[in-house]
Amino acid sequence: MLRKIVILGAGKSTSYLLDYLLEKSEEEKLHLSICDLFPDMLPNRIKQHKACSIIKLDIFNETERKEVIKSSDIVISMLPAHLHINVARDCIEHRKHLVTASYVSEQIQALDGKAKEHGLVFMNEIGVDPGIDHMSAMQAIDKIRKKGGKLILFESFTGGLVAPQSDNNLWNYKFTWNPRNVVLAGQGGAAKFFQEGTYKYIPYHKLFRRTEFLDVEGHGKFEAYANRDSLKYREAYGLQDALTLYRGTIRRVGFSKAWNMFVQMGMTDDSYPIENSEGMSYREFVNLFLSYSPTDSVELKMRHYLKIDQDDIMWDKLKELNLFDDNKKITLKKATPAQILQQILEDSWILGDQDKDMIVMYHKFGYLLNGKKEQIDSNMVVIGENRTHTAMAKTVGLPVAIATLFILNKKITTPGVQIPIKKEVYEPILKELENFGIQFKEFKVPYLGYNPNV
Amino acid sequence: MLRKIVILGAGKSTSYLLDYLLEKSEEEKLHLSICDLFPDMLPNRIKQHKACSIIKLDIFNETERKEVIKSSDIVISMLPAHLHINVARDCIEHRKHLVTASYVSEQIQALDGKAKEHGLVFMNEIGVDPGIDHMSAMQAIDKIRKKGGKLILFESFTGGLVAPQSDNNLWNYKFTWNPRNVVLAGQGGAAKFFQEGTYKYIPYHKLFRRTEFLDVEGHGKFEAYANRDSLKYREAYGLQDALTLYRGTIRRVGFSKAWNMFVQMGMTDDSYPIENSEGMSYREFVNLFLSYSPTDSVELKMRHYLKIDQDDIMWDKLKELNLFDDNKKITLKKATPAQILQQILEDSWILGDQDKDMIVMYHKFGYLLNGKKEQIDSNMVVIGENRTHTAMAKTVGLPVAIATLFILNKKITTPGVQIPIKKEVYEPILKELENFGIQFKEFKVPYLGYNPNV
Repeated sequence: MLRKIVILGAGKSTSYLLDYLLEKSEEEKLHLSICDLFPDMLPNRIKQHKACSIIKLDIFNETERKEVIKSSDIVISMLPAHLHINVARDCIEHRKHLVTASYVSEQIQALDGKAKEHGLVFMNEIGVDPGIDHMSAMQAIDKIRKKGGKLILFESFTGGLVAPQSDNNLWNYKFTWNPRNVVLAGQGGAAKFFQEGTYKYIPYHKLFRRTEFLDVEGHGKFEAYANRDSLKYREAYGLQDALTLYRGTIRRVGFSKAWNMFVQMGMTDDSYPIENSEGMSYREFVNLFLSYSPTDSVELKMRHYLKIDQDDIMWDKLKELNLFDDNKKITLKKATPAQILQQILEDSWILGDQDKDMIVMYHKFGYLLNGKKEQIDSNMVVIGENRTHTAMAKTVGLPVAIATLFILNKKITTPGVQIPIKKEVYEPILKELENFGIQFKEFKVPYLGYNPNV
Repeated sequence: MLRKIVILGAGKSTSYLLDYLLEKSEEEKLHLSICDLFPDMLPNRIKQHKACSIIKLDIFNETERKEVIKSSDIVISMLPAHLHINVARDCIEHRKHLVTASYVSEQIQALDGKAKEHGLVFMNEIGVDPGIDHMSAMQAIDKIRKKGGKLILFESFTGGLVAPQSDNNLWNYKFTWNPRNVVLAGQGGAAKFFQEGTYKYIPYHKLFRRTEFLDVEGHGKFEAYANRDSLKYREAYGLQDALTLYRGTIRRVGFSKAWNMFVQMGMTDDSYPIENSEGMSYREFVNLFLSYSPTDSVELKMRHYLKIDQDDIMWDKLKELNLFDDNKKITLKKATPAQILQQILEDSWILGDQDKDMIVMYHKFGYLLNGKKEQIDSNMVVIGENRTHTAMAKTVGLPVAIATLFILNKKITTPGVQIPIKKEVYEPILKELENFGIQFKEFKVPYLGYNPNV
């Protein structure tokens, strides 16, 4: 008998997810019900695949949503995160497993008891970050623990970037994922982390000036800035005793220092609207944040304000974005500075048809073994194939697809609301991911830590 | 027959208010009912004054509050701003006039119709800033308009400072008013103003680096940083056509640049708690915001982070606050950085028994008259007498007291929720204030503006 997988939301991150499940459909006896508000967007090879039903579904239509969920054996939700909760409640009602790549919200967490009661696996955070980071970190941590090591340092970094072969701007960056998240990154409070046993805080306006460098063999040098909450998985990973906990976002070297110019100007602010934004030129937008002068140019005012030397490459990065162009116009009405900046950046940083993206992940594990401090670093680099088969879609979609199949096949059985940190979950999934070139390289390195004398 | 004035709240800003009304009590046949939760705090000369009743009142006790309001002819509320609304509703119910020094909230504004219906004067924002600024500005503006001038520029600045005779620290600053407001000043969004016909925005982390200088004859040089919303009174003052609108806060020169160090570090952040704040040393607090190092000192890390030269006076300003002291301890539990900074500053910036404070106000009025651009500047400086009879208490309390008496005597009669911008209001009050040395000096100056060629 066919096993029916319902997939809610078939946006651009689902290419690999669908391909994987369709590829396995015959051997595994799978039928996919792909539900989307705009299913016409799907490519023909999916629409015409015999193992697929394509369903036009408005997720807010409760009757239809419940019906399709009721008819399934397992549900994958690739909807925007805030829409998962209704799906999750339906899954409880109709006793269906659920897989999502999103962060566990408090509302979803509250369903843990009921999921367990009915023996349902509610697997979340099983994309790339969060997802592959959890699995690869826990695999390494469990291995260190097994040989008797005690974790004292954990740092983890991820970045969605443009691949070297498509890296042709001064920022070494293009949007490979939600641009709004990039513009707002780091906002909403000071970044908090733990370093050698003490809390550390970085205010937003300093965040992009406190970066750390990372070398990835064969891929060059990267930098990372701190995520807002590095302590989030302290308990989940069992790292209550670790002296250093740090999570960060990876960019190419020089990005953060240049991005800091926008932060300093106030251009990433999303808290108030610019009354007359519509029709404003890029140049006028810049001038909103500079002192008035009847004579001085916007350029010189900005150079002086941000202390940018005449020969600083930072300046060329701004010019590359047409930031001082008087003919380029903003088309958004009453937009916030952040929304306007996003429009300006999208003008330059859009991933072209032939462009490839890249996902880079880097972990550091410091531990105490037989009285000695040791360190293992590991990293993963995935390059996309094209604009639909991106590294982002691959690293998000494959773990979701694989987890779904393993739940169906009862390889993953522990019920409840969870993230992929159990061996039962991460081991088979990481193994299968290796077949798709998603693989970590591990290196033994000298313990760096931050306090060699303690 | 005696006229009964009910005064709700008898905190430290009421010294001049009470003195003024008691001084006039015989001649004007006034009786004061002074209501406070802790009336014992009042000095004996007030408590024993024959024109006074002292009432212990919990403002949340509705029955007692209504009773005392019902028995009055007019009500003065010196309570914290958010407590005015219940008083105002009682005043509507019992048909009493109301005077406060606080900003008009939306809730208070909503009572305008009813106040008018019953012929009640609800006078607000009649302290110093807001208050004396409204009155003095509108007097000058009306005068300019009367002679045919058209306002094109309005800037207004106020500061509560320490008087020169008590100015004995490197910051040239002590707390003369609510310290929390000083620590949080400028937060909650970008500062917005209007300059030569264009909007300008300054993000919080740049606010204290975009100051303007002010010279006050006989009192030296000051600086001012922008208030959050300079456009607030554009309509109220009838300045819709003015090309420049700017409101700011006055400090002694150098304060803002030094304050910016706290902003840059993240020490003014009030959005998250420091878990282990209690018992933390001042030095440890500073180190929360600096990178970890097993060897480098907190001092050198901070100098490097903020690029403070070895011979920069900014450094001595930090040392004066004992910021690097390992023995000085924070006593607050789970306090925010802003709360901790406030505690550290209060340790140094408290107004001593013999200290005097100072209020400085400065206006600039630019206008077009007979095709020519003209400018008038005006300023006011008030020095306090001692720690209870402060310049702050004087400039807040006297306008409140005077307005109250004028309303009682039907000199001010226009009903409704209002701020003191009508000639009926500002003219007699400013005249009376002159008898107490609260007086503006006007100067004709060359039109400065920002665009001499337009």
